[in-house]
Amino acid sequence: MRHDSPEFKVRMNDHIAAIEAAIHQHTPAPDTRPAILHQAMRYSLQAGGKRLRPVLCLAAHALFPSTLDPLPAAVALECLHTYSLIHDDLPCMDNSDLRRGHLTCHKQFDDATALLAGDALLTHALWLLAEAYQDVPAVAVGLVRDLGDAAGSKKLIGGQVEDIIGERGAATLERLDFIHHNKTAALITASITMGVRLTNAPAGAVEKAREIGLNAGLAFQVIDDILDVTSDATTMGKPVNVDADNKKITYPRLHGIEASRAKAHELTATAVRLCEELGGQNEFLVALVRGMEHRIH
Amino acid sequence: MRHDSPEFKVRMNDHIAAIEAAIHQHTPAPDTRPAILHQAMRYSLQAGGKRLRPVLCLAAHALFPSTLDPLPAAVALECLHTYSLIHDDLPCMDNSDLRRGHLTCHKQFDDATALLAGDALLTHALWLLAEAYQDVPAVAVGLVRDLGDAAGSKKLIGGQVEDIIGERGAATLERLDFIHHNKTAALITASITMGVRLTNAPAGAVEKAREIGLNAGLAFQVIDDILDVTSDATTMGKPVNVDADNKKITYPRLHGIEASRAKAHELTATAVRLCEELGGQNEFLVALVRGMEHRIH
Repeated sequence: MRHDSPEFKVRMNDHIAAIEAAIHQHTPAPDTRPAILHQAMRYSLQAGGKRLRPVLCLAAHALFPSTLDPLPAAVALECLHTYSLIHDDLPCMDNSDLRRGHLTCHKQFDDATALLAGDALLTHALWLLAEAYQDVPAVAVGLVRDLGDAAGSKKLIGGQVEDIIGERGAATLERLDFIHHNKTAALITASITMGVRLTNAPAGAVEKAREIGLNAGLAFQVIDDILDVTSDATTMGKPVNVDADNKKITYPRLHGIEASRAKAHELTATAVRLCEELGGQNEFLVALVRGMEHRIH
Repeated sequence: MRHDSPEFKVRMNDHIAAIEAAIHQHTPAPDTRPAILHQAMRYSLQAGGKRLRPVLCLAAHALFPSTLDPLPAAVALECLHTYSLIHDDLPCMDNSDLRRGHLTCHKQFDDATALLAGDALLTHALWLLAEAYQDVPAVAVGLVRDLGDAAGSKKLIGGQVEDIIGERGAATLERLDFIHHNKTAALITASITMGVRLTNAPAGAVEKAREIGLNAGLAFQVIDDILDVTSDATTMGKPVNVDADNKKITYPRLHGIEASRAKAHELTATAVRLCEELGGQNEFLVALVRGMEHRIH
């Protein structure tokens, strides 16, 4: 299956439709008290994301037979990702007014509501895993450990801290590597391992899934950095070259565009090779990983 | 056991010493990368709290026989409580410079670090439950559900939102009730149910524990409101009468001090009666609930 084939696009659209419906189903209704909070949570959840992390979870889940529904785990991943964006955009962080072509949560509501909506989405993500998979508690515990570890102080949040420090201090390759591994690749890795945990996968599959996620996740961040330099605001849905203005460390800034493209291609090829080693019904996952690289074109 | 007896004080001090050691053991070391984040997490965790929620968890755990260690759950409760204080104190929320007689996290560090330290403590709390109790996954799942539910958008965070709205809008008894139930009592309730979940409790004990927590938690908040009016800054460790200045809804503001004292006494008596109905080794828990009321004197 090629990433630009009609077959891939149909499957992608089916997954996204299922994820949109599951987000609606597995988050509190917008009139739940306090309504302003639940409206803010939904506003940001529905503000035009690509749903990459939940789609990766569904693609990994499709590798091996399973009777467990992966959609609550997919929703948890999107809630977690959305919380991280809401808090990143706050005035004390990146102070962004736009995200994906929409007003950021604190511009649409206010700073306090956005702070608390982010807190609520983070809490909901981890709670939902325990709630939805309580009948398979060993699986539920694995999911909470995966997501909590990826989102924690040593990974996602730690990467964010080093990213902020990077704006003030030295832009070293070593620091860039820490940020990419933790701020981006950790959650993409969890998306794939969580999908595999919800299957009857062969022994060792979760470890292999982790390697796939690491390579695909690093490729994703390098490509994001390239797009930030080369795209226009319409494509990205946010102000472009913000990263250069902010003096953030990026791969193109340290290595140039051509070396960055080569790096993304190499990481993607490694992820694809690992998918093939893992086996199972991997056609869609392979196409998805290849498609993540071809955002460049 | 009386709450002012030497026996009670010895047991309380033993519990607090065990909790302090467990906080050190079950949170990342302060030199973990990024060090500034882990230092901020520890700064707020160690800034002189009473450890009420973890002590309640240990007191509930002592009711019935158990071989499971309640200390990781106690640490998770303190991490959760500490995150909520860090975010409450931020400039976009209460904008407080002092907490428990120390600089608040964002004054000691900066707003971004405090935001992320709060996020990290919340994530750590839920992750730690899954990590520490992974060998008893059904128990772990119950703990994550308890804490995630208490800390979520309908309870702790929802109560916080209504508290902020209350400063702008009508101070009604109905709104005060919602705030007290959710902002305060929900986490105190989880402290007790989580302790009981870690025991070989008789059927129905978790439900009874929930009722005890609700009454004790509501009493705690009424007393907190009274102390805010009647204490001096030294006793409270924070600026006094902030709530009146902020136009926050409080029990004494709606009912007066005397009716508030009577309400706290009635709620405490109900909690004590429920503890006696629950049975088990309840002497310390009963004394603790009584002691929570006697903060007034």
